[in-house]
Amino acid sequence: MHTILKGKGKDVVIGIDKPFVMIGEKINPTGNKKLAAALKEGNYDFALALAKRQIQWGADMLDVNVGVPDMDEVTAVSKLVELLTANVDVPLCIDSNSPQVLAAGLKAAPGKPLVNSVSAEEKSLNSILPIVKDRGAAVIGLTMETGIPKTPEERVALAEKIINRAGQIGIPIEDVIIDPLVLTVGSDSKAAQVTIQTIEILRREFGVNINLGASNVSFGLPDRHTANQAFLAMAIQAGAACSITDPIKLGQTIRAADLLLGKDDFAMRYIKYFRAAEKLKEAEAVK
Amino acid sequence: MHTILKGKGKDVVIGIDKPFVMIGEKINPTGNKKLAAALKEGNYDFALALAKRQIQWGADMLDVNVGVPDMDEVTAVSKLVELLTANVDVPLCIDSNSPQVLAAGLKAAPGKPLVNSVSAEEKSLNSILPIVKDRGAAVIGLTMETGIPKTPEERVALAEKIINRAGQIGIPIEDVIIDPLVLTVGSDSKAAQVTIQTIEILRREFGVNINLGASNVSFGLPDRHTANQAFLAMAIQAGAACSITDPIKLGQTIRAADLLLGKDDFAMRYIKYFRAAEKLKEAEAVK
Repeated sequence: MHTILKGKGKDVVIGIDKPFVMIGEKINPTGNKKLAAALKEGNYDFALALAKRQIQWGADMLDVNVGVPDMDEVTAVSKLVELLTANVDVPLCIDSNSPQVLAAGLKAAPGKPLVNSVSAEEKSLNSILPIVKDRGAAVIGLTMETGIPKTPEERVALAEKIINRAGQIGIPIEDVIIDPLVLTVGSDSKAAQVTIQTIEILRREFGVNINLGASNVSFGLPDRHTANQAFLAMAIQAGAACSITDPIKLGQTIRAADLLLGKDDFAMRYIKYFRAAEKLKEAEAVK
Repeated sequence: MHTILKGKGKDVVIGIDKPFVMIGEKINPTGNKKLAAALKEGNYDFALALAKRQIQWGADMLDVNVGVPDMDEVTAVSKLVELLTANVDVPLCIDSNSPQVLAAGLKAAPGKPLVNSVSAEEKSLNSILPIVKDRGAAVIGLTMETGIPKTPEERVALAEKIINRAGQIGIPIEDVIIDPLVLTVGSDSKAAQVTIQTIEILRREFGVNINLGASNVSFGLPDRHTANQAFLAMAIQAGAACSITDPIKLGQTIRAADLLLGKDDFAMRYIKYFRAAEKLKEAEAVK
């Protein structure tokens, strides 16, 4: 199953027979005060710089989130997406809880964007899916309602609900990417395996593409990077096809996972990435 | 299935329902000129220091290899194993191609040691297995004859041959740990998946414990550490239960894998390891 996204100048195909797709997560003001302040001032150049840097580090797509309190997010997402469209080629992933913000972002985006995200809550299904359908976009479906279920079976049932509801209004299953969610293993030792098992069932029963926000798994732990790397490798082996993640931190691990899954003949992409990353580290150290 | 090894003062249980077992690989003169020179001089203190350092870094067992050209390895292994036995508690893994060296190491070792290794070659089966049986030891079986087969099915057939031949002379299956071997993905993009699939079949059909020498997978590649980490995580998820490895480099990744597999309630072992490693890094930096 292939999910095809289109940017201004570049298409991306998500599928487990394809290289893993990195969706750069850094255009998100949550936890980034500098970005939040810039967006609030109507200055989008800082976000554009984050976009360019992530693409240099291998991002295939960019997540775009402008969620800043007490700000006109509809105007912000429109202007930022216009600026990104004028300057970068990759497909965009419009990220918001607000249907209005999503609609504005989708309107400004070129090609075929991705929507992040819909949940299995009625309110979310009813407000988000029509916007996705009208725009001919693809959507990430989170396996949650008001809360995140504890068992794989319950998460799979919510994924099925999202897939069915999308299908009913004409969004094909290949345009629904399921995110099985992951909680921290710091408070529940079974948390990672619940997610891995959800991925395995979803792959077997629906064949849908799986997105992963891998870094939650290590929330509250020391050396989060090592735990995130190991989880990403396990989840990719289990069948995840894309991740909204930090390409600067996890790009080489993702290239390694592709290599280990037999998707990189003679390790060409792995080696090329390593060399490019070495040069980028040097260049960024000089700045 | 549990493989139980015994040191002078400590037992180790290998099994997929137990924490992953790290067998320290550093007492091996291949590629360590300083160790080779010390062994040749009859100085075993450097090897003892390597033993103690690996245990500090979490090694549950120690591999002991004294393979230096033009040296009396029988004397060396006897003296080194005696020194280790007087100073450390963990079970030992006697590592040699030579039946005489193995026999001498096993004789000097306390408790119930492990033998590294037997292959499926007639010569190896006939010379190594009787020594293992006589000593009541356990053994690592490599899925190779003169060469390493390319398919999982062929490797499984060789594992079955080793398991059967061991059984015929009275070595129980729980005392045969299979190493499915891994070749570098730098020259064959399917190499890692062949090993992963071999692990999965062996777990399903025989339930045997699996050992892994993970670092070969990245031979010839840059940033071997990232590739080794990702492969180790994948192999542990597939069912590997122990690894002859460098605890200093891969200890935290192994603790992360245990945590992600639900074997570490409240991340106690992961966090404890992190704190100990931070202190060791500081102490070693001062030296």
